Amino acid sequence: MSCSDDRLAEFESFALELGWAAATAILPRFRANVGIEDKGGDQGFDPVTAADRGAEQAIRAAIAARYPEHGVIGEEEGEDRPDAEFVWVLDPIDGTRAFISGLPLWTTLIGLRFQGLPVVGLIGQPYLDEMFVGSARGSRLCRNDRETVLKVRPCAGLSHALCATTDPDLFKGEEAAAFTRLRRSSRLTRYGCDAYAYAMVAAGALDLVVETGLKSWDIEAAVPLLAGAGGEVVDWEARPVGRDGGRILLAGDRRVIDEARQVLA
Amino acid sequence: MSCSDDRLAEFESFALELGWAAATAILPRFRANVGIEDKGGDQGFDPVTAADRGAEQAIRAAIAARYPEHGVIGEEEGEDRPDAEFVWVLDPIDGTRAFISGLPLWTTLIGLRFQGLPVVGLIGQPYLDEMFVGSARGSRLCRNDRETVLKVRPCAGLSHALCATTDPDLFKGEEAAAFTRLRRSSRLTRYGCDAYAYAMVAAGALDLVVETGLKSWDIEAAVPLLAGAGGEVVDWEARPVGRDGGRILLAGDRRVIDEARQVLA
Repeated sequence: MSCSDDRLAEFESFALELGWAAATAILPRFRANVGIEDKGGDQGFDPVTAADRGAEQAIRAAIAARYPEHGVIGEEEGEDRPDAEFVWVLDPIDGTRAFISGLPLWTTLIGLRFQGLPVVGLIGQPYLDEMFVGSARGSRLCRNDRETVLKVRPCAGLSHALCATTDPDLFKGEEAAAFTRLRRSSRLTRYGCDAYAYAMVAAGALDLVVETGLKSWDIEAAVPLLAGAGGEVVDWEARPVGRDGGRILLAGDRRVIDEARQVLA
Repeated sequence: MSCSDDRLAEFESFALELGWAAATAILPRFRANVGIEDKGGDQGFDPVTAADRGAEQAIRAAIAARYPEHGVIGEEEGEDRPDAEFVWVLDPIDGTRAFISGLPLWTTLIGLRFQGLPVVGLIGQPYLDEMFVGSARGSRLCRNDRETVLKVRPCAGLSHALCATTDPDLFKGEEAAAFTRLRRSSRLTRYGCDAYAYAMVAAGALDLVVETGLKSWDIEAAVPLLAGAGGEVVDWEARPVGRDGGRILLAGDRRVIDEARQVLA
């Protein structure tokens, strides 16, 4: 059974509400230099702000009020009914390093799973008044009370591709060598965009995002958003990306994914 | 002779006018995927858009109308009276790679020299409605018809410092090794911000920017902006940064510059 268009439209509208509920908790703390905490331990520096937790609590409260039977999986507060028919997958602030650096490329990621598969995705950047939302019905950017259809652009191959990854130093060992080959094969590579780069692929501004070590909440929201814009998200072995995250390729044109896989292999 | 506060205030207001004049030429072309041109030649990919040239023409026209005796130095259209008492130094779109990637971290840089020294600086990001402007009178962020005072934050040393550079691959040979030491000594490093990172140091969100191979129009606007916010800009030998650009350190706290120089040496 698939999720009907009417229900998808309902959940897209609700995802937008959730994005703005999160913004209420986040925006007053952006550039406020308060509430920064280090949960990195032996794994190094991993900042989490009061904004992150406040936003996840705001989103969870809104879901519990409207859809009490739905499950929730969040970066900050763990799992709640993870096997429900509908499960929301949340990262209230993706790009916490950008956030604490004052850079408006952090995003709120909200995905909805139906019977285990991602069906609605939202990438929100409220400081820019940007909410990217999509599903099988299509994808759009909501900004300044206007809506723009999101559509990927064609790209014939890597040598034409504008690429992005969060941080080249996240690739280790053989992955680092593979990433260097990919970077040298592509037209240019941007760093530090986190999930904002996914939205730029959906908008037809970037062609490829390559990442490693992702969690499900880092990527699930992108899957329906990209599908609705005509692109796709796969792992480095070209399999669909689901609950595991891991190593991903996200592109607007299948030819770029095929060539990237050859270069990375 | 120094430039009076009244004149500095006059030129700051005019710099804001110039920033918005440039925006009129730039914003319609941002994310429009039009007018991209490659002037890189043997130097590799160096995109310049119609937006870049349209913006510089708009700025030059406004200067010629208001202050016909002033000189102008611009990235796109060369030098005009470069030895005048007042000279405007322009980079209409710093961060053209960010621009063509749809990322709102490109900026318009406008600096004013008086008798050879930088006295007014503006860093503008009109998609964010952000204009950072400053001089010896102080520095401020103008956004949404509100003004916020810009003030750097204290930072005891590199291990506490949030750092930024445009692209780690711009450091070659011994510089690359030096940059790697700096990155490993600092708390975290952001890439891809171009001159937007200067504004974040002035705002107290970042602590250090390190760059190499800059032109005068890449950095001169930052000198008065940082001075007005309590920070400073020097070259890797701790000399004032002037017409030559080159290798720079830009920080909110002198201790960070001193330690960065030791690590880079």
